[in-house]
Amino acid sequence: MNASYRPPRRNRRYVIGVDFGTLSGRALLVDVATGKSAASAVQMYADGVIERHLPGDPKRLPADTALQSPADYLTVLSVTIPKLLRAAKVLPEQVIGLGTDFTSCSMLPVKADGTPLCFDRKWKKNPHAWVKLWKHHAAQPEANRINELGRERGETFIKTYGGKYSSEWFFSKLLETVNHSPEIYSAADRFIEAGDWIVWQLCGAEKRSLSAAGFKAMRVYPDGQRSWTYPSPDFFKALHPRLENVVSEKLGGQTHALGSRAGGLTRAMAKRTGLGEGTPVAVGNIDAHVAVPACTVTTPGKLVMIIGTSTCHLLLGETRQDVEGICGAVQDGVVPGLWGYEAGQAGVGDLFAWYVNHGVPAYVAKGARKAGLTVYELLESQAALLKPGESGLLALDWWNGNRSILIDAHLTGLLVGATLATRPHEIYRALIEATAFGTRKIIEAFTEKGIAIEELYACGGLAQKNSLLMQIYADVTGRPIKVAESEETCALGAAMHAAVAAGFYPDIHAAAKKMARIRKKVYRPNLRVKALYDCLYGEYTRLHDWFGRDPASPMKVLRRLKAAASSAGV
Amino acid sequence: MNASYRPPRRNRRYVIGVDFGTLSGRALLVDVATGKSAASAVQMYADGVIERHLPGDPKRLPADTALQSPADYLTVLSVTIPKLLRAAKVLPEQVIGLGTDFTSCSMLPVKADGTPLCFDRKWKKNPHAWVKLWKHHAAQPEANRINELGRERGETFIKTYGGKYSSEWFFSKLLETVNHSPEIYSAADRFIEAGDWIVWQLCGAEKRSLSAAGFKAMRVYPDGQRSWTYPSPDFFKALHPRLENVVSEKLGGQTHALGSRAGGLTRAMAKRTGLGEGTPVAVGNIDAHVAVPACTVTTPGKLVMIIGTSTCHLLLGETRQDVEGICGAVQDGVVPGLWGYEAGQAGVGDLFAWYVNHGVPAYVAKGARKAGLTVYELLESQAALLKPGESGLLALDWWNGNRSILIDAHLTGLLVGATLATRPHEIYRALIEATAFGTRKIIEAFTEKGIAIEELYACGGLAQKNSLLMQIYADVTGRPIKVAESEETCALGAAMHAAVAAGFYPDIHAAAKKMARIRKKVYRPNLRVKALYDCLYGEYTRLHDWFGRDPASPMKVLRRLKAAASSAGV
Repeated sequence: MNASYRPPRRNRRYVIGVDFGTLSGRALLVDVATGKSAASAVQMYADGVIERHLPGDPKRLPADTALQSPADYLTVLSVTIPKLLRAAKVLPEQVIGLGTDFTSCSMLPVKADGTPLCFDRKWKKNPHAWVKLWKHHAAQPEANRINELGRERGETFIKTYGGKYSSEWFFSKLLETVNHSPEIYSAADRFIEAGDWIVWQLCGAEKRSLSAAGFKAMRVYPDGQRSWTYPSPDFFKALHPRLENVVSEKLGGQTHALGSRAGGLTRAMAKRTGLGEGTPVAVGNIDAHVAVPACTVTTPGKLVMIIGTSTCHLLLGETRQDVEGICGAVQDGVVPGLWGYEAGQAGVGDLFAWYVNHGVPAYVAKGARKAGLTVYELLESQAALLKPGESGLLALDWWNGNRSILIDAHLTGLLVGATLATRPHEIYRALIEATAFGTRKIIEAFTEKGIAIEELYACGGLAQKNSLLMQIYADVTGRPIKVAESEETCALGAAMHAAVAAGFYPDIHAAAKKMARIRKKVYRPNLRVKALYDCLYGEYTRLHDWFGRDPASPMKVLRRLKAAASSAGV
Repeated sequence: MNASYRPPRRNRRYVIGVDFGTLSGRALLVDVATGKSAASAVQMYADGVIERHLPGDPKRLPADTALQSPADYLTVLSVTIPKLLRAAKVLPEQVIGLGTDFTSCSMLPVKADGTPLCFDRKWKKNPHAWVKLWKHHAAQPEANRINELGRERGETFIKTYGGKYSSEWFFSKLLETVNHSPEIYSAADRFIEAGDWIVWQLCGAEKRSLSAAGFKAMRVYPDGQRSWTYPSPDFFKALHPRLENVVSEKLGGQTHALGSRAGGLTRAMAKRTGLGEGTPVAVGNIDAHVAVPACTVTTPGKLVMIIGTSTCHLLLGETRQDVEGICGAVQDGVVPGLWGYEAGQAGVGDLFAWYVNHGVPAYVAKGARKAGLTVYELLESQAALLKPGESGLLALDWWNGNRSILIDAHLTGLLVGATLATRPHEIYRALIEATAFGTRKIIEAFTEKGIAIEELYACGGLAQKNSLLMQIYADVTGRPIKVAESEETCALGAAMHAAVAAGFYPDIHAAAKKMARIRKKVYRPNLRVKALYDCLYGEYTRLHDWFGRDPASPMKVLRRLKAAASSAGV
């Protein structure tokens, strides 16, 4: 027992949020009254992202495959939660609720009792029996067919999803299974979001979240109607005869509100985690979405940006609007009582990392070491001295395609304006600016439809570490930016939903008031700088529209030539 | 005396070529019968390129200044030529001629006896008294005025120079002197190309070359006329009242053919160089131009590319055509009896060096060290494995502006098609391809006017070292490429002109037959690869025309915003 030992305060109550990410799960123990973190723990997934071979199987998987093992999710629970309790010296009975958030759409086929098909020896060598991770991209032909048919039939989901249903989403992945492995389709009693599956594992009941169903699985509100529906059996039959009754047979129509109690922790799960049996478990959340209340946002007019390798934009609105090129709009989908809108940028932190790894010369790394900085910090400090437009550079930020507005994964990056005098920090700033212009495009798509955006909120590593990036976003968009205080915003958001599900707070608004905080430092737009950026943004828009909208643009022709070259023998 | 000593063969005859480059002078001693090199020597210029301060003067020079000291040129002669003789054990009487070539337009003001004004204490602190080097770029306002007036008056030189007179050329630099330092204009008896001045120093007579006069100083052939002329005193008067009689007062109308004898070596210069008094001295040449016969080319249909930091293209034609965007067309200007055409690409080796220095990450350098290669060689070996179009990348090669076709120094580089999977060798290849497409644009400008180009010839370090570059040029242009054998093509070309001036050969055709050689390896186009490149070239052309020709293109707007940002206080 060391000098700094303080006895745990037994009168305190805690909630746990578990954030299931792409490579690991992170659990956070939070004081339910204050939202302050008491402990956190991370567990990497043993099988990580399965892209080349299934575990123990030498057979090469097809291109664009990205699978996961549900066993890794269970390990997260059994490793991290006991760690939290030990680290914070908190007793199981002090933990009054457990919430989760998950990547989405990550989905898997299971038996009627919830057992994943991949746990069955019979199916474990079949990739379709595993979790298809959000970034599994092999279902593009299926997505194309869904969009074609959806447009032909004037299906509501086309408008709900900004004009295009993604290859990453639920029915694209499910149709891929039907097409490539009908036996898995037959063997599965359920197809389910991994986020709903983990809740099922925790509380023993299949309680699906309305959010994932609404944002990824075509649970939509037809025009002028106040009640939701899935597309009709006719639609699904036209998609594939086997799918006619997919909703009733393999999903079940029931969905549940965010912050509602899915059930109590099972005895088995209580043993596994060290928590008390019956501990309230919240309905599952989508990872980026829980960041919204964790940034203090539970009302319209505030765009929340979760800035990581990519950026996810979330916004609340009083009314429903069909906004061009967004990812989706779901009533009650982010905060009950409001429409939740989602949009995204496919390459942000990833783009900067690509540049630092593959485009920054050794002398920058050397200079950074000398100055005791990271390469990012050195580039940031040099780039901060530039004025807008001074480098003469402008980029289109599509190194990883365009997720919102144009919704085209095949668009590519562009840099114009380089001279022999161009230096790395100038390119770095141009890339940051390009992502800011991309964000402004998304903001304008909303505001053009009358959905107000007065402030921006940001969370994620880049928001907290890169103040140049934040200031540029404020200047480019002309809006103040507030940054979340927590560095584990998603896990905090999951914990906040646990607090609501446990009945500690009446709703997420009350939970956000007590548990969420933003940093003191607010990035305010400099309007003179914004005026300069308006000019650059005008040029960004011209490049955006020519390269991104013209079906015969050089960018699109290059993509076709690339595909042809890969198959041609020269 | 060591074992390998062989007595010099006293029956052999030699010529010397001295190549005055940007940073140094290089002298080559050549067997006049075979063209084989007997010795070479290089001397760096002590004052190099004077850009910031005049020697011994702390005053900062204006932006875009690039001057040289004529004393450095004289040092080249007195250091290198004696070295050649010693190294090859050749007697002065064995050297039967001396030729030179020089950067152009590099020009200076001198007194009537040839003494540079900058040698005079009275003027040595005045930058206009020094040699204005070819890359002195401060005379852009003067060039603009010349072009405006030339177009207004329908002056022949506008068409001769492809539509635009350059800020680098003779009268732009001279008008700058009149505007900024009229006292230098008054004090100078002559303004002269440095290449003509060095010949004057060698043989004591002012014998100007028709080539420099034709390519840089408005000595042109009006439409339908068989005799040349300078613009009229009216034109010069309109340009500046002081210039009315500039040609007769400060230039003298006389010009001399290439390969003709300017005179014999003066006694003073014989003493300085160790050569015999009276040794024949050839009329001066432009550096890139002498490479043409040194590549064996003395007839039409063969485009010679001197590939270095930039590329210079030279072509011979039977007739005169006004070709869009070329640098110039001069009768007898490269080879007597033919029209000499010049075009250029402003950034080639410079562009690759920029990329390697500022865009290639440390792991490439590390990989190169491990493989015992240079970074260039490693990138080349990796890039050679790619098929055309496979990387999805396409670039506009304008990092240093566009010298021919568009003639716009303010155009900038562009790269489109990057993804998170893009790697350095792919970018490197895209940059090489972009310069190849730029060359094809120049070729098509000629062939569209009926000037045939059947083969390409290349010289310069890149042509000799980078076989991927050569093969890509062959594939993109659909033409075979032959590479000069000599690594000192310019100095060899100067020596060949010395051989003609000395009367050893009747003309440059005969000299080329005996003294010039190409390598055995010929790069032949692969027509299947060319077909793929035709598609990429189509997209290059679309980018070229939109970004380069549209006066409101994003590239041009960015340039204006850059200029504005540099002056704005934010």
